[in-house]
Amino acid sequence: MLISGRDDLTRYETDVLGRRSPACWVARPKDLDEVRATVRWAYAERAELVVQGANTGPVLAGVPRAGRHQGVVSMELLRSTIEIDVLNRTVTASAGVDLDSLNEALARSGLTLPIDLGANPSVGGMVAANTGGARLIRHGDVRRHVLGLEVVLPDAHATVLPLLRRLRKDNRGPDLKHLFIGSSGTLGIVTAAVLSVDPLPQQVATALVAVNHGDDVLHLLTLLEARAVEHLSAYEMLSRPTLEAIARYRPPGMRWPFEPSRASDLPPFLVLVELDTSGSANDRRQTLEDELTTLVAQGSALGWVTDAWFGRPATLWALRHAAINALHQEGPMVAFDLSVPRSQLFETRDQIIALVADRAPHARYADFGHVGDGGLHSISIWPRDLPTARRTDERDRLRDAMYDLIAAADGTFSAEHGLGPENESAFRRFSPEIRDAQAALKALFDPRRILGAVDLS
Amino acid sequence: MLISGRDDLTRYETDVLGRRSPACWVARPKDLDEVRATVRWAYAERAELVVQGANTGPVLAGVPRAGRHQGVVSMELLRSTIEIDVLNRTVTASAGVDLDSLNEALARSGLTLPIDLGANPSVGGMVAANTGGARLIRHGDVRRHVLGLEVVLPDAHATVLPLLRRLRKDNRGPDLKHLFIGSSGTLGIVTAAVLSVDPLPQQVATALVAVNHGDDVLHLLTLLEARAVEHLSAYEMLSRPTLEAIARYRPPGMRWPFEPSRASDLPPFLVLVELDTSGSANDRRQTLEDELTTLVAQGSALGWVTDAWFGRPATLWALRHAAINALHQEGPMVAFDLSVPRSQLFETRDQIIALVADRAPHARYADFGHVGDGGLHSISIWPRDLPTARRTDERDRLRDAMYDLIAAADGTFSAEHGLGPENESAFRRFSPEIRDAQAALKALFDPRRILGAVDLS
Repeated sequence: MLISGRDDLTRYETDVLGRRSPACWVARPKDLDEVRATVRWAYAERAELVVQGANTGPVLAGVPRAGRHQGVVSMELLRSTIEIDVLNRTVTASAGVDLDSLNEALARSGLTLPIDLGANPSVGGMVAANTGGARLIRHGDVRRHVLGLEVVLPDAHATVLPLLRRLRKDNRGPDLKHLFIGSSGTLGIVTAAVLSVDPLPQQVATALVAVNHGDDVLHLLTLLEARAVEHLSAYEMLSRPTLEAIARYRPPGMRWPFEPSRASDLPPFLVLVELDTSGSANDRRQTLEDELTTLVAQGSALGWVTDAWFGRPATLWALRHAAINALHQEGPMVAFDLSVPRSQLFETRDQIIALVADRAPHARYADFGHVGDGGLHSISIWPRDLPTARRTDERDRLRDAMYDLIAAADGTFSAEHGLGPENESAFRRFSPEIRDAQAALKALFDPRRILGAVDLS
Repeated sequence: MLISGRDDLTRYETDVLGRRSPACWVARPKDLDEVRATVRWAYAERAELVVQGANTGPVLAGVPRAGRHQGVVSMELLRSTIEIDVLNRTVTASAGVDLDSLNEALARSGLTLPIDLGANPSVGGMVAANTGGARLIRHGDVRRHVLGLEVVLPDAHATVLPLLRRLRKDNRGPDLKHLFIGSSGTLGIVTAAVLSVDPLPQQVATALVAVNHGDDVLHLLTLLEARAVEHLSAYEMLSRPTLEAIARYRPPGMRWPFEPSRASDLPPFLVLVELDTSGSANDRRQTLEDELTTLVAQGSALGWVTDAWFGRPATLWALRHAAINALHQEGPMVAFDLSVPRSQLFETRDQIIALVADRAPHARYADFGHVGDGGLHSISIWPRDLPTARRTDERDRLRDAMYDLIAAADGTFSAEHGLGPENESAFRRFSPEIRDAQAALKALFDPRRILGAVDLS
């Protein structure tokens, strides 16, 4: 179970963005008993550990903390169970099962866990981060799908909370499972989950639409929800600076609907709209494509949509998915995973743009995100030739001011990536009442603070 | 704020089923400050209190506990706020606002909180019980709609947790609001909530279908979900004994699709199926009624549906809503609010029927419920002429055995009505690990145990 020898540890010590800090040890329990043995040992020895799933998270919550002596409990071998209950529309899965394997197994029963990401996380990691993704607007976050959990508590006995239930409704006092969803592994170790799953969509219709104003992005969203809320499965925004980066670095063969030589023709906002349905085209004389065309035409007649492109979903999503890589190629960046009330999204965005200009004068601003649910990936990019010290200084000033701005806008600095050392400094923007209550929960469940990823105080 | 004089207290002391126990006092705070003042006083005096919303719950969680000296904090005057944010699709409401008033205000913006009940509870009460209702299968429980809460903690300072956020995704450590949802007022007092709301449905299509076997009830459900999961808004079952009661006691003028004189013609199961959509009929050439007809015909071709009636939703729902009153008229009853995994629902039901025959030989069994989400209202009715002592004895024996059976079936005794003195005796069927953790949370948040509705130990 334990790995020794420094060379073997690299991949457990290195996060998805390539940041590395040393692990004292790596344990790879292959069942619940081995997880419990590891926890009991850590409790007795007061050894700090971080739990690592598929190691796909960007907030450093799954790798050892720099400057601390921590071990890694990798869940990668904990994959024995994928049990599908078709009539209950649920699946029971071990924490180490990855999303792609889970969905491959579910697809054979016509089912899917509709969490759509540019990564392949583990079940345990998705629960710890309460992962969102591109289909949250219709299908919800991971929390919405969690019916039950098995959790090992970091106490002397490595107590197991037997919450692995398969019920869609159950209200018998405080629902303990919610303490472990979205809390970044601070209170317990998730070893298995029961997830409510959905029928596979039978039709998907996708369009890219150009919009001139942030207000109109929201108006179009409201129209789509009023007419087709149960089908609206994605509402993703790319702003012009992001489109410019994609224009420069787009992969060969990617469909690009704009005139290549005329960057000035790029719209201020490009929105990817998607509808899905579990009904087949045979069920309905009007297909979902027709419905989407009708709705976009209505948005156009109201002056909100200035241009539109329809096409195969995979083709249009390729453009959306090209965003982050294109921006990475522009230069060193800092990215914020924000969410604010939708009604304030574009007002807050204007404030962010002004803030970047003020605090990070050498940076360029770009953004994109799941605006349908209030999400925004807000990115600042520095020129490669700027001295590192200058960039670091601007980045730190920006980060500090950004966290204040988001707190003032009643938003969050951690929409869907969870809390980790990467964004922990924002934590103190919470009200003291909330931090006190969270710290009390930490003291209750993890009295020796052996779960070391995040400092809840 | 305080009411004195015994006569004034009756309605605060009496629950929806007419059970009464005396209150030492009744406080009716009209704002947050008055709630806090009440809590500080109770903390200082070690006075026990129960929080009461609209007093519509059936588990005695909102009235004083028999045999204890408790006051009532009625939230009925706490109704100052109904703030709708159309672009964010949210509403902020005071805890004392009732569901009908909320939906009346929302309807003016084309929105609705899709919690569908045979009662008119308060916002705070719905949060405390994590109310389900007849549309849970499509629209979810109250928890799914809660984005934020304002909570007064029962500590010396009456600390306010400022969790009144309007975000659809926010993962910054343990999400405290979930501790107060569905926990029956054991840990804190909800004074306001932010709720995510939905566009009003534009089309609703409803049918009653007759089904011979429990397995076929599940097969039809699976078919409907595979073809129209995003529209399936209700899947309600009435079994033959319930239909017999409705036949006897149905209100004059209610549509009754069966031959009045032939009880033997009643099907073993009648299922109310409903689809809804936010799209108007003009959006689609095939209406939702056509779609439902097609799907029911498919169920019929597969042999699962033996007969079907289509009609106005209100007409068909009248039959469904007649169930509980008809059963009440049959005689004294005990009702269980159960949920089990759907795949085991009819197997568990068979066990329950055998159990009732064994433990309560004078009782007749009837049931109905939200089977689409695994829910079952399971009812035993005694003849009026049976001596009370005999009935009480049978009832107690049945209740005890029923709780064991449901625990063994991995189900719950409290699907959607919450935990209260009425079903508290089932609480010890929890694993000791879960009860220990719940008791520790109670000690943490309510150190003097002033919130007295439920005994979490």
